[in-house]
Amino acid sequence: MPLDPEIAARLKRDGDGLVPAIVQQHDTGEVLMLAWMDDEALHRTLTTGRATYWSRSRQEYWVKGDTSGHVQYVREVALDCDGDTLLVRVDQVGAACHTGDRTCFDADRLQAVQGPAAAPAER
Amino acid sequence: MPLDPEIAARLKRDGDGLVPAIVQQHDTGEVLMLAWMDDEALHRTLTTGRATYWSRSRQEYWVKGDTSGHVQYVREVALDCDGDTLLVRVDQVGAACHTGDRTCFDADRLQAVQGPAAAPAER
Repeated sequence: MPLDPEIAARLKRDGDGLVPAIVQQHDTGEVLMLAWMDDEALHRTLTTGRATYWSRSRQEYWVKGDTSGHVQYVREVALDCDGDTLLVRVDQVGAACHTGDRTCFDADRLQAVQGPAAAPAER
Repeated sequence: MPLDPEIAARLKRDGDGLVPAIVQQHDTGEVLMLAWMDDEALHRTLTTGRATYWSRSRQEYWVKGDTSGHVQYVREVALDCDGDTLLVRVDQVGAACHTGDRTCFDADRLQAVQGPAAAPAER
């Protein structure tokens, strides 16, 4: 059974048939990683409860944690306003990053000028 | 002055010279949106304190909030382990989404089977 046609009709894929998936720890809000899904990977993610991606480097489906044990149990999936990005909220077992870091964004903070704080009245 | 050459050397861009930027509210952890940056947009984001993207639809730089008032003040920028994704932590004024929603992921939750909770011992 393929991806629900109503969802498939809303997806806007890139030239390779892929959509970026932002992966977030559902309770702490940590952004864990970015991965890519085609229709089949999204279908498997929605129906198995295990986050499943398309590996662009290996050109194969990749059930997160199958080799590392660092499984992602799916809590919620949302599509953005343009239909071209997914947000996958998961319960991450152990490290999300292949380096052993909890997230793929832990190691390389760039030097940035901080913008002024937004005025509370505008929030 | 262009992007710091040490940062430029670590960036892995797509065929259009772009890198996806995940945008997150710095204190609540909300994932607000996904946008795209080239070297110049990243340089402006790091040096001006205002989140600046490359609009793929309009083919121009886009300082978030310049027309809407929904400014993003930059708090922190991180590059991921592969150098192909940015995480931009901001202080968002008002709605991040052009629809008026706080985030671009508020409107379209997909029906998903929930995975089992991870065993606490594994976390």
